[in-house]
Amino acid sequence: MSKDLESLENLKNAFTLLPGVGNKTAMRYAYHILKLSKEDVQFFAQSMVQAKNNVKFCLECGYFTDNDVCSFCVDRANADTICVVKEPKDVLAIERTKSFKGLYHVLHGTINPLENRGPDDIRIKELLQRINKHNIKEVIVATNPDVDGEVTASYIAKLLKPLGIKVTRIAQGISIGSELEYADDVTLGKSIMERKIIN
Amino acid sequence: MSKDLESLENLKNAFTLLPGVGNKTAMRYAYHILKLSKEDVQFFAQSMVQAKNNVKFCLECGYFTDNDVCSFCVDRANADTICVVKEPKDVLAIERTKSFKGLYHVLHGTINPLENRGPDDIRIKELLQRINKHNIKEVIVATNPDVDGEVTASYIAKLLKPLGIKVTRIAQGISIGSELEYADDVTLGKSIMERKIIN
Repeated sequence: MSKDLESLENLKNAFTLLPGVGNKTAMRYAYHILKLSKEDVQFFAQSMVQAKNNVKFCLECGYFTDNDVCSFCVDRANADTICVVKEPKDVLAIERTKSFKGLYHVLHGTINPLENRGPDDIRIKELLQRINKHNIKEVIVATNPDVDGEVTASYIAKLLKPLGIKVTRIAQGISIGSELEYADDVTLGKSIMERKIIN
Repeated sequence: MSKDLESLENLKNAFTLLPGVGNKTAMRYAYHILKLSKEDVQFFAQSMVQAKNNVKFCLECGYFTDNDVCSFCVDRANADTICVVKEPKDVLAIERTKSFKGLYHVLHGTINPLENRGPDDIRIKELLQRINKHNIKEVIVATNPDVDGEVTASYIAKLLKPLGIKVTRIAQGISIGSELEYADDVTLGKSIMERKIIN
């Protein structure tokens, strides 16, 4: 960048704050901003500051909200199923599937003994409180299918089963529409071990 | 998105203004903004507005600058070579190669008879003026190797050759470090036709 382009350089550097954005993509984005209308750039900058200022964690489930309690917690207060996820963005991923209409609970992390993160470092206590408060019959653990996610799922299952609550885990196997040839060995192995009878 | 998350929704929509960014990536970026510090978000928003307000086109070459004339035009005023490109971002691509130390000239477009864009719609007149003003001996045409770029290159060559100016075109052929097997047929064909004697 030439030395008289400090403002463009700053903007490029700002874009590298985004995940997966290197110098080249950041420069591409920065150039594009210059092509947008002043109104669009104003809207972009404002929405950034407003989102940062307005969005808080829901006091109930830990998802994002502009209010104190999110609309899921308000609208689905009578649900008897709760879906436990690691991060707020996982809520949206599940919502996109349109296959769940219950409550959510965001742990804001997972248990990882090696990194010294125990049950007290994530929102397990809050989960218990909400299970008591609502008439919860099933807890679906939708943490990621990695080591931390599995450890956390096992912990929650052990904790809740004595209370007579059904604890389930999201199914793992080959992706719909994928080809066996390209599936990783662990996933394919698991999909064979957990095969189901065809009705 | 739940209805109580208007500010996050706005930010997601803002990110889709960027090239190649769909809803999913925009959402990922928007979530990431929430994780940044208030200072970083403030810097990001400010640099966006400032870049839009401060960056103008250089009155000489048409590249970006915060001033009236860009630093290339100031620092290289005595150069006798000028490199002609389609868009401002092409200047940066060539600068990255560190293999050119002359002046630039941004056409802000290419000639395309089918879309009714002729020489008067791009900065050809300004190119002639600059060639007269500076002591230019060679014009390197670095427009893209597509139909419009070639048409524009031919036009410039025909225009300048009678003036006794050397007009050159950037070399086209297989990419350095690539494999022949994966090169497209047109490029590979061209690289054979334009083969060079090994010294």
